[in-house]
Amino acid sequence: MSDSDFQQVTESATRTTENTHNPYGPNPADFLSNVNSFQLIDSTLREGEQFANSFFSTEKKIEIAKALDDFGVDYIELTSPVASEQSRSDCEAICKLGLKAKILTHIRCHMDDAKVAVETGVDGVDVVIGTSKFLRQYSHGKDMNYIAKSAIEVIEFVKSKGIEIRFSSEDSFRSDLVDLLNIYKTVDKVGVNRVGIADTVGCANPRQVYELMRTLKTVVSCDVECHFHNDTGCAIANAYTALEGGAKLIDVAVLGIGERNGITPLGGLMARMIVAAPEYVKSKYKLHKIRDIENLVAEAVEVNIPFNNPITGFCAFTHKAGIHAKAILANPSTYEILNPQDFGLKRYIHFANKLTGWNAIKSRVDQLNLSMSDNQVKEVTSKIKRLGDIRPLNIDDVDSIIKDFHSEITTPQLQSLRNSEIEDVDVDAIDIVQPPVKKAKTDQ
Amino acid sequence: MSDSDFQQVTESATRTTENTHNPYGPNPADFLSNVNSFQLIDSTLREGEQFANSFFSTEKKIEIAKALDDFGVDYIELTSPVASEQSRSDCEAICKLGLKAKILTHIRCHMDDAKVAVETGVDGVDVVIGTSKFLRQYSHGKDMNYIAKSAIEVIEFVKSKGIEIRFSSEDSFRSDLVDLLNIYKTVDKVGVNRVGIADTVGCANPRQVYELMRTLKTVVSCDVECHFHNDTGCAIANAYTALEGGAKLIDVAVLGIGERNGITPLGGLMARMIVAAPEYVKSKYKLHKIRDIENLVAEAVEVNIPFNNPITGFCAFTHKAGIHAKAILANPSTYEILNPQDFGLKRYIHFANKLTGWNAIKSRVDQLNLSMSDNQVKEVTSKIKRLGDIRPLNIDDVDSIIKDFHSEITTPQLQSLRNSEIEDVDVDAIDIVQPPVKKAKTDQ
Repeated sequence: MSDSDFQQVTESATRTTENTHNPYGPNPADFLSNVNSFQLIDSTLREGEQFANSFFSTEKKIEIAKALDDFGVDYIELTSPVASEQSRSDCEAICKLGLKAKILTHIRCHMDDAKVAVETGVDGVDVVIGTSKFLRQYSHGKDMNYIAKSAIEVIEFVKSKGIEIRFSSEDSFRSDLVDLLNIYKTVDKVGVNRVGIADTVGCANPRQVYELMRTLKTVVSCDVECHFHNDTGCAIANAYTALEGGAKLIDVAVLGIGERNGITPLGGLMARMIVAAPEYVKSKYKLHKIRDIENLVAEAVEVNIPFNNPITGFCAFTHKAGIHAKAILANPSTYEILNPQDFGLKRYIHFANKLTGWNAIKSRVDQLNLSMSDNQVKEVTSKIKRLGDIRPLNIDDVDSIIKDFHSEITTPQLQSLRNSEIEDVDVDAIDIVQPPVKKAKTDQ
Repeated sequence: MSDSDFQQVTESATRTTENTHNPYGPNPADFLSNVNSFQLIDSTLREGEQFANSFFSTEKKIEIAKALDDFGVDYIELTSPVASEQSRSDCEAICKLGLKAKILTHIRCHMDDAKVAVETGVDGVDVVIGTSKFLRQYSHGKDMNYIAKSAIEVIEFVKSKGIEIRFSSEDSFRSDLVDLLNIYKTVDKVGVNRVGIADTVGCANPRQVYELMRTLKTVVSCDVECHFHNDTGCAIANAYTALEGGAKLIDVAVLGIGERNGITPLGGLMARMIVAAPEYVKSKYKLHKIRDIENLVAEAVEVNIPFNNPITGFCAFTHKAGIHAKAILANPSTYEILNPQDFGLKRYIHFANKLTGWNAIKSRVDQLNLSMSDNQVKEVTSKIKRLGDIRPLNIDDVDSIIKDFHSEITTPQLQSLRNSEIEDVDVDAIDIVQPPVKKAKTDQ
C-alpha cells in the first residue's frame, strides 16, 4: 500500500474547544443535569455503621461528623434512633453540635419509628421501604397499597413537625417500573421534599440509571437522591450518570463503607466530579481534607486505605513507565486528569525500575544537582535498566549508580581508565552497590 | 389528605418478565452489544508491570501467565521486548509455554520495536501511539500524518509475518474525534485485526464511552478493544458500557494493577459481567480461581486485597443490619446480586452487633441447636443489642449471651428466680461475659 492509498489525515492540534467549554464536563444535551449543582449526603454514620467492622463510640461519631461538616458535605445521615438506645442518644448529641451540615436520620416507613425520629432534633428524616418483589415477599411482606398508605401517613406527620422528609424505595432497580413511578408520583403530590432511588444490591449499570432518572424526572417535581451499592464496581459511575440524568443528591460514605463492600465512596466521587465540574467542586468542598477524613475512618473501622484508592491510594499519582515519566516532566496533564495539588498531595516519578527512561533519570540527576550531558544520562539510564532487570531497585540504588557514574566521568584518572576499557566491559556484570565499580558499555 | 386522594397503586408483584429475559442483561436496543460475547485481554504482565510495586521475576511471570490461562482469559499481554533484555527473554519464554491463551506484546508504533516483537514468538502485537494534542506535543512530538504513515508501515509488516496486529490510540478521550475516526478508518482499510480505544488518564465517563463506541463502530469493520484507567473510579462501568456500545475486547489486570491506581480489574469486571451475562461468564471463565489469582498477584507486588474489593473483599458477602440478615435468611437474592458460591466463596450473616435483628439471632440459636420460642429469641436479641451499644461484640460474646439465656429459661430454679426479678433488673448493667449473669427485662 502506498502513501496515496490512505486519506490525508486532518491535522487539528491547533483547533481547541477548551476555551469555550470543559470537554469532560456535563453533556450539553443533558438539560436536567445536576453535575454542576449536586449535593452530598454522607452516610458514614448510617450506612457505614452497617459495615462489618464498624463500631463507633459516641466520641468517634462526633469526631467524624465534625470532620465531614468541615469538609463541606451538605447532609449527614445517622442510624435510626430506634436501632438501639445508644443510637438515639448519639443522634441527639450530634444534632446539638450546631454543624452547618443538615442532620438526617434514616428510618423504616412506619409511624412508630417516625415518632421517635422527630423528637431527636434532626433537620430531616429519610424514610425507606422495600418495593421489589424480593423484598416485599421476603422482608416486610406488604403490598404496594399498604406502602403508599404508610408513606403518606409518615410524610404528613413529619412535615407537620416542620422538618424535611425523603421517601425512598429500596432495591429500586429490581422493582416494577410502574409501581415505582406510581408511588413516587403519590408522595410527590403529598409534598415530600425529595424521593430516593436505591440500588440496594449493586446491580444497576450506568445507562439503566440514566434512563430511570430521566423517566422519574418527568413524573416528580421534587429533588431526587441516589444511593448506589458497589457490589459490581459501578457505584461511582452510577452516581455520576444519575446526576447527568437529573438526580440532585448522592449518598456517599467515607471509603464507601457500608453493607457488604459498600456504597459510592466520598473520595472516589470527588475524583469523578472534579474532572466534570472543577470550579463547583473546588469552591464547595475542602478537598485537601479527604486524606485526613479517610485516615480517621479507616483507623476507626480497622481497615487499610486500599492500595488503589482514588486520590489517596499510595500510587494514585505515581508514574512509572519511562514514556509516561518523560511526558509528565514536560507537562503533568499528559498523564494526569487529576492534579494532586488540589488534594494537598504530590506526584511522584518512579524512576527506580527497569521501565524507566532517560528523561526521568535526567530529572533525578538535576535533583541531585549533578551535571551530565544527555548522552551521559542515557548511558547511566542503560546501567539502571540493566540492574532493574536483575532485582527490584529503590531510590538509593539509583542514586548510587548515578553518583558513581558521575564520579567516573568527572575524575580525570577514572575517566581515562574508562575511555580505554569501555569496549571490553561485561555489561551483565554490573554491581554498583558493592565497589569497585564496574563499567557498562554505552548505548550510543 | 385522605386515602382517596392518591391514585390506586398497581399491584404487579405477580407479573414478572424474568422468564423471558434477564432484566440486568444487555439492553435489547443495543444491537451492537457484545455483553454476551466479550473477550478478555489480561495485561497484568504489561500494564501491571507499570504498577509502582511491580517487580516480577521470570518464574513469577510464568506462574501468573499459567494461572490466567487456567482461569480462561483470551489473551495475555506482555511488556515490550524492547523495554529491557529480560523483558525480551521473558516474552520468548512465555510464548513457549504452549498456553491456550494467545500471547501479545505491546510496543510503540515504530518499525524498530515491531522487528524485535515479531521475533519473540508472540501470537500478536499491540501497537500504541499517543493521538491527543497533549501527547503529540509533550511526548512523541509527531503529527497525525506521521502517525498514519508509521501505523500503516508497522501493520503491513506485522501482518506479513502472519500474526495479529492491533492499532490503538493513546489518550483517546482527549484526542480530536475527526483525527481519531480518520486514523481508525485508515488502519481498518489496511486490514488491522482490531483497533483500541484507551482512556489513558482515566477521564472518560460511561455515556461518553458509549457514544464513542457507537460512532466508531459505524467507521470500522474490525473488532474494538478498550483500555480504561481507574483514576476517577469508572473503569469497570466504562468497560461494561463499552461492550454495550459494540466493543468486543476489554483490557484487564489482576486487582487492576497498572500505572497510578490502575485499570479495569479482572475480578471486578467479572462481578459486573456475571450479573449481565451469567451463562456466558460461568461457562467460559473459572470464576472460583479469582481468589487464588488475586492472592498470587497481591503477594507478588506486596499489596493487600482491598477491604472493599468486589467478590474477594473480606466483607463482600457479609450482611450486618438486622433487616438485611432477616431477608437474606429467607432468600439470599433479596440482598445479593452475586452468589458467593459462583466464586467458591460463602456468605456470612454478621449477627454480633447492635444492628442485629431477632431473625439473625434465631438463625444462630438454631445453629447452636438450642430450642427457644420466638418471644424468647426476641428477648435475648434485646440483650445482645444493648451490649452491642456498649462495646464491639464477637461471635463468642453472642453465643455466651444466648447460652446463658437458654440456661436460665430451661433451668427450673433459675426460671422461677427470673420470673420474680424480671421487672426490677437494671437493663444497662448487662455483663454476661463475667458471671454471675444479670438479667434484662423483656422487650415484649
